[in-house]
This record gives sequence, structure tokens and C-alpha cells, in this order.
Amino acid sequence: MVSFAKGHGTQNDFIIFPDDSVSVDLSEDVVAAVCDRQRGLGADGVLRVARAGELVSAGVLKSIPDGVAPEDWFMDYRNGDGSIAEMCGNGVRVFAHYVAAIHSPESVVDGQLRVGTRAGLRSVRIDSLSRERAVVGVDMGLPQVLGLGTGFVEGRSATWKFAGVGVDVGNPHLACVMPALDVDGLKSMQLGDNVSVSEEMFPAGVNLEILTPLDSDDTISMRVIERGVGETRSCGTGTVAAAIAALTDAQRTTGSVRVLVPGGEVRVDVSEAGDGRFGATLTGPSIIHTHGEINLDLL
Amino acid sequence: MVSFAKGHGTQNDFIIFPDDSVSVDLSEDVVAAVCDRQRGLGADGVLRVARAGELVSAGVLKSIPDGVAPEDWFMDYRNGDGSIAEMCGNGVRVFAHYVAAIHSPESVVDGQLRVGTRAGLRSVRIDSLSRERAVVGVDMGLPQVLGLGTGFVEGRSATWKFAGVGVDVGNPHLACVMPALDVDGLKSMQLGDNVSVSEEMFPAGVNLEILTPLDSDDTISMRVIERGVGETRSCGTGTVAAAIAALTDAQRTTGSVRVLVPGGEVRVDVSEAGDGRFGATLTGPSIIHTHGEINLDLL
Repeated sequence: MVSFAKGHGTQNDFIIFPDDSVSVDLSEDVVAAVCDRQRGLGADGVLRVARAGELVSAGVLKSIPDGVAPEDWFMDYRNGDGSIAEMCGNGVRVFAHYVAAIHSPESVVDGQLRVGTRAGLRSVRIDSLSRERAVVGVDMGLPQVLGLGTGFVEGRSATWKFAGVGVDVGNPHLACVMPALDVDGLKSMQLGDNVSVSEEMFPAGVNLEILTPLDSDDTISMRVIERGVGETRSCGTGTVAAAIAALTDAQRTTGSVRVLVPGGEVRVDVSEAGDGRFGATLTGPSIIHTHGEINLDLL
Repeated sequence: MVSFAKGHGTQNDFIIFPDDSVSVDLSEDVVAAVCDRQRGLGADGVLRVARAGELVSAGVLKSIPDGVAPEDWFMDYRNGDGSIAEMCGNGVRVFAHYVAAIHSPESVVDGQLRVGTRAGLRSVRIDSLSRERAVVGVDMGLPQVLGLGTGFVEGRSATWKFAGVGVDVGNPHLACVMPALDVDGLKSMQLGDNVSVSEEMFPAGVNLEILTPLDSDDTISMRVIERGVGETRSCGTGTVAAAIAALTDAQRTTGSVRVLVPGGEVRVDVSEAGDGRFGATLTGPSIIHTHGEINLDLL
């Protein structure tokens, strides 16, 4: 039996394994089984909690990524299919919530927690915290605007065509602001899960966001179709790309954008980072509702 | 925090709430939230474990169904959307497993457990039992053959047409044996989730099974499209309907049929029950892999 917790960030849901000694077998098969929504416990992904140095000693990490110290808590993130992903914008909030509230409260210094990820160190800000709920802000690095692009989404009866801004947030996005689109119009769009884009701009595929223009309260609503997954209720990096596209569409470069996704709401702060580049911080909720023990051998 | 277990029968998955005092709020909203696969824990349904008499005292049941005694363990079953269903062929195995192995082992007498359901008393046979795994046989009552019918299933590129046998197993089924269909052919069929049938035969819709003919080992493979749900990995009453259709197709009325579903395998025994009627027993596995506590207020 292995201890776990389950929670979600704007309904992007995760199974958390506290595993200081790196003894839980997270082979692709095990992760896929535990994330299987009928056979296992079910989740979008798995977050193992261990110190970076221990993960290197156990051979899970080849080396400690840039800026991460051996004693930092490291988010060993796996996608639901068992594959490894470098970062997960919603996952890191749930991870930080678990570490700050339950696993290692003493690691929070001045409201900040250092979180190691395969994409490097993320400095995480804990805005509010209880065992069950937290609001967490995560530095999302320096997104790169790639230029304008066009995406096609197969719907039930027709194919939608969208113009958008290509944004690299560690992973590739095409964020499409639809002029005059409102929340009801967005909800009623019958979108399929198949997206096609220019292979020149997005050689490895794309995550596609469809969003309303920035309103007078700097709020947008969006839906997202994730690469290899289909439409989801939330995508952390997608909200960052959407905020940048909405600001761009409004002839602005910086701002604090409230982003409504089907799974809830987050805030994206875009600010100047020098050298003509811009940094983004993603702030949003985490909920941890379940604690238990699972027998992985049975899955 | 509320204690729960999670398990599945041929990948039809359930959250079990041991609730002797009937104190857990299982309103439609709570059940829908806990079964929600992103926001909650995720499951096809919820099984509350309480004694029949206590459920009546608490007002959950208006009266004790036929044949059930007040002290019998009662499966208070809810669908994933929060609605109430009378019976669930896979759920009752997981329920019986939990009661027999964990909650009330002393209730098993001579390998049998009395399980109250809204459809009346089910006598359940425990064939093998551990805390994690069980094989359980459930009396599925007296299925009624309704006659021949035709069903249509929308596929990706074409609409499939199937001829089948209508069977009432407490709920309505159209079980369609396809001549010369083999396992690979069955797997490769690109089926959608929309089924249409004659409203005269099935005024309340139908669950549709597609199956291979009975082979020389009395084995069939099937897929099932459940009413209001779409294709699932398993459907207990559907396997009973399929076994009856396969026997009928082979010019037989009784037999022990091994039924392979995407979620595993079960056995259906069809035998004479007098007065020209036939009874069916469904025997299959149950796995309980997780135990924990969930905070329902957070969902």
C-alpha cells in the first residue's frame, strides 16, 4: 500500500505520492494504470514529492536541473499516459500546496517555496494556505511570442478556422482571440478534439486556445484543446498564452489578466523582464480533497 | 472527512461509503461531484453500505423492498450523475466483496451473503475472497426475452445496422450476435455512442450489445453501448442479455457462457427456472485497490 493524496488546480487533477525515499515504482505502466479512470484511481497526472538529490541518487533524474539545489523539493511529474513532462502549470500549484500545507511546511520561507522541476527551479508564492485549499502563484518564465498563425479545429458539422498568436511557454500554443466573441458564444461552439496547424510554425503540434477579447475588467474567457489529449477544463501554460494574446490584441504588452476556464479561474500577470522580454506569473487555486492508501499491485 | 474505498468490477468503477449510521449526505449534487472525474474522486457510481432498516429510519428508503430484512446490508446505489438506480450487476459484486472481506465478514453464511437492493433481495455467492480481490456470483433474476429487434449505431463514417434479441434484465437490452464476427473484427469496429431503436419495443431507450457468436468453448466477446452513457468497458446486465442472445443464436436455451468484455471477463449461467422461464447468475471479479478519506465539502 502506498500513501497518496488527490487534488486539482482548476479541475486539472493529480495524484500526489509523498515519496522521500523514492521507493514508489513509477514506471510508465504503473502511472498509466493509476491514472486510468476506470481501472485505477484516475487523474490527469502524477506528482511525486521527493528531494532533488534523492531523485538523482535513485536514478530517476540523471542530473539536477539548472538552479535547483539537492535539498529542494522536486516535482517529479508524469502525464496520465506515463510519459514524462518537464512542467505542468496547474500541477505545480497542487504540488506546492501539498508541500507547504502538509509535507514540509518548514520549507516555506517568507511565503515562498522553491520547487525543482525538470524545466529548472520555479519560485512559488503561497498567497493563502490551509490543509484543503491554497492560492499559489507560479513564475512561468519568459514566454516567447512566435508570431501570427492559423489553426483549424474539426467540429461536429463544420471545420472552424482561427487566427491566433503563437506563444512558446515551454510548450507550443496558438492562442486565438475571436473578435466580438462572448462567453455564451464560446460555450456554444461545438468543437472537436482534432487540431491542425502549420507544421512550419509548430513542428511538434500545438495546444490551441480560443478566447474572448479582453473586456474592460481585463477578463477573458477561454477554452483549450490540448495536444494529444483533446479539450480539457484547464491548461496552465495555455492561460499564459491566452493572456499574452489578449493583451496583444488590445495593443498592450503588460497587465494582470483574469482568465476564466471551464474548470475555474486564474490570474496571469505579464510584466517587463528587461531586454524586450516579458515574464509571466500564473496565480490560481489548489484543492486537496482526498488522502488515502492505494495498492498499486492490483491495478 | 468521510471514509471511502474504491474498486471496480471488470472496470466498472465505484466509490464505496461505509455508512452504518446513514450520516453521509448523498444528495444528487454531492454524488455527481464525488463521481466527477476531474473535480472529485471519479467513478461510475457510488455504493453506500448500511443496513436496510437504518436507511428506512433515515428516510433514504421509503420502505424495505420485497424479501429484504431490516438487518440485511443494503446497496444504496447511485449513478455517477447522482440519480438512483435499482440495481447494478457489477456494483453488487464490489459491494458484496467490501461487506464480506472488510465491513462485516460475519454476515457471510455458508459462502452466501444477503444483499438488499431497490430491486429486492439478491443472494450473493462468494467464490473466493481476500481484502483486495474477490470472485462473486450474483443471482440476476429471471430475464425476459422480448423478441427480435433492430438497432442502429452511428459510426465515424457510416451507420451500423444490427439485428438482435431484446432482453429485459431489469433494464432493456438489445443483444446483437453478428454472424462470422471475430474478436479482431469486433475491436476494429468504429462505433459511436448514439444508438437508435424501435420506440415500440424500447419506449425508454436501450442498452445495445454487439457480440461474436458462441464459440466451441461457449465463449463470446462483446462490446456495449449503455443508454445515456455511451460505450463502456463493462455492463453487468448487458453480459446477461448477451449470453442469452448467444445461446438463442446457437439454438440453445441454457448453458454457462464465458463473456469477454473490454474490462475483463465474467461468466453467465443460464438455467431453467420452471414455468418456461430462465434464471441467470452473473459471476465475476471485484478488485478494491484504495482506502481513504475524502472531504466532500471541498468538491
